[in-house]
Amino acid sequence: FRDFFLPIISFVREVDSKYDLRKLIHSIKVGVALVSVSLLYLLDPLYKQVGENAMWAIMTVVVIFEFYAGATLSKGLNRGIGTILGGGLGCLAAAFAQDVGGIGNSIVVGTSVFISGAAATYIRLVPRIKKRYEYGAMIFILTFNLVVVSGLRAEEVMQLARERLTTIVMGFVICIFISLLVFPIWAGDELHDSLTSKFEHLARSIEGCLEEYFKVDTDKENRPGFSFSSCKSVLHSKAKDESLANFARWEPWHGKFRLSYPWKKYLKIGEVLRDMAANVLSVKGCLQYPRQSLQNLRASIKEPCEIVGSSLAWALRELGESIKKMNKCETAAFIMPKLKSIRHELNLIITPSALAGVEKSTDALELASFV
Amino acid sequence: FRDFFLPIISFVREVDSKYDLRKLIHSIKVGVALVSVSLLYLLDPLYKQVGENAMWAIMTVVVIFEFYAGATLSKGLNRGIGTILGGGLGCLAAAFAQDVGGIGNSIVVGTSVFISGAAATYIRLVPRIKKRYEYGAMIFILTFNLVVVSGLRAEEVMQLARERLTTIVMGFVICIFISLLVFPIWAGDELHDSLTSKFEHLARSIEGCLEEYFKVDTDKENRPGFSFSSCKSVLHSKAKDESLANFARWEPWHGKFRLSYPWKKYLKIGEVLRDMAANVLSVKGCLQYPRQSLQNLRASIKEPCEIVGSSLAWALRELGESIKKMNKCETAAFIMPKLKSIRHELNLIITPSALAGVEKSTDALELASFV
Repeated sequence: FRDFFLPIISFVREVDSKYDLRKLIHSIKVGVALVSVSLLYLLDPLYKQVGENAMWAIMTVVVIFEFYAGATLSKGLNRGIGTILGGGLGCLAAAFAQDVGGIGNSIVVGTSVFISGAAATYIRLVPRIKKRYEYGAMIFILTFNLVVVSGLRAEEVMQLARERLTTIVMGFVICIFISLLVFPIWAGDELHDSLTSKFEHLARSIEGCLEEYFKVDTDKENRPGFSFSSCKSVLHSKAKDESLANFARWEPWHGKFRLSYPWKKYLKIGEVLRDMAANVLSVKGCLQYPRQSLQNLRASIKEPCEIVGSSLAWALRELGESIKKMNKCETAAFIMPKLKSIRHELNLIITPSALAGVEKSTDALELASFV
Repeated sequence: FRDFFLPIISFVREVDSKYDLRKLIHSIKVGVALVSVSLLYLLDPLYKQVGENAMWAIMTVVVIFEFYAGATLSKGLNRGIGTILGGGLGCLAAAFAQDVGGIGNSIVVGTSVFISGAAATYIRLVPRIKKRYEYGAMIFILTFNLVVVSGLRAEEVMQLARERLTTIVMGFVICIFISLLVFPIWAGDELHDSLTSKFEHLARSIEGCLEEYFKVDTDKENRPGFSFSSCKSVLHSKAKDESLANFARWEPWHGKFRLSYPWKKYLKIGEVLRDMAANVLSVKGCLQYPRQSLQNLRASIKEPCEIVGSSLAWALRELGESIKKMNKCETAAFIMPKLKSIRHELNLIITPSALAGVEKSTDALELASFV
């Protein structure tokens, strides 16, 4: 079977960063989960038990196995609840249709399909439900329809529903087992890493900005301008952070936080850091247009600005480091007075570029120093 | 059947905005599509043709019918391509496994399941593919597995694949017909509206900022501060815009743009407007901390600042209006010189709050005046 493993080996060679390695682990986990669930087909004793319904186990594994453990759990639970609700209501509607009988049967089925589909779709579009239960609503519509229309034919709806539910649970258990217990990839950890790296990104952006601003004008034209890409990545991290936090809240006991993962605080700090990134980004305009007339002013503010910039970057790095290591920030007591005194000095000389940044960062401090 | 329609009537009553009406229309469309596809079960002649495979048509409708026409089309095509590729490769693998025979059969099946699952999952995680073809990759894994494992049992893989494909195509056709032809909800139109409303949001934010900044200090404490929420909504619109543009590129001929929907330009303008929103947001710091020492300076710059602010807001509204109506901006010739002269005036008096904004907006102009 050497031929089969060649593509895998070539994948392994591609791996050069931690991120890619995680993707590789995830892919292998999915492969393992699929093979385990295929055993329902491949092993005769198991196949005799579940029959064609083994299909639903495969489908469950393919559909709910997501990159983050929390996402898998959330999708699995959504699928379970959607199936049970849809199956239950579908059974009721099918039984009612059976009672009516004749041509009325089809009408009742058609009407219930229309109403349940339209109502669940409308509910699915409500923003708060869309965020967390969209998949469940979709599975509800699917199960309801399958049960209610096949109820006309199979006349054994209850048994069908029970059997399918059993196989779905099998698929779910395999997924959860592999996703949570074998090299789990936690959305909470990712959120944590992304938050701490934001501090570093901002610190580097501030330093880069100041360096660019106070460069001698002559060589300004030759070199490529300072790139705001890391600053922008912080600015546009809202959607990603929110989805990570959404997954993190489903994740069970793990790591240092135990059960009370403070994802709300992560979102709050992220929001403050994004505001700060907006401040840093707004300096871009000043960098792009070298106003010769301000050459003297610029030279006169160079020293205080550089002090501000370096202490801001230092404060950010300290905070990021303390959050990363999850211990109380040792230097927190020093950061606040230092930044305040700097702000006071700055009030005397107006420097558009750094002032707003300082003010925001004290806000950030208040929030971040809780760790 | 009055009882059945009561929930719908109550929904109609809830409708108070255009957005809700669109949601309602979408829900009804989904209901109609589900009923039409259920006819495959309900009508005997049709059921005799397709049999149990009608299930796949229902599944297709439930899964691919999305809010925007472009999203439906994209999911449907993904599903189609994924099914064909997965089915084809699955048939090959199943035939190969059949040739090997005996216990080797199961080993070949298991190995191919593992490799296809792991490889497709890895590919699915590549950012560029994740964005547009993630759903197709998932369907590929699903179909491949179902075909290859049931190939062991059914011994009629080809026919099974063909029948399922037929019913999937039926579901797809119903979806596309209802989604694209009956009150279509275009992602392109939504992107267009969201872009034009950004101009208005920014204009209002700039005006609000200036008003807040130059308010008499005595009543500053009493009133609630100016809200940056509309400015922030512009700032955090990146993810939504990108997904809309992603759907819009799938959408066929419609509206004024015909086939060449300029979604790339929409994204570019959106990017510039987000930069500008960051500039506006960075003024927040100045508003929050009333520096008494600057009271005199503030009074002296009040007049030029207000002129700048109002002409900026005017320029933004003009541009937004011209994009909205999709005609060449009549006043474009006036906007550029006006903003330039203002900038020149401002260079003499440094005003941190408005300067950066002016500079960015000339960039915005260059991009936006293409319409």
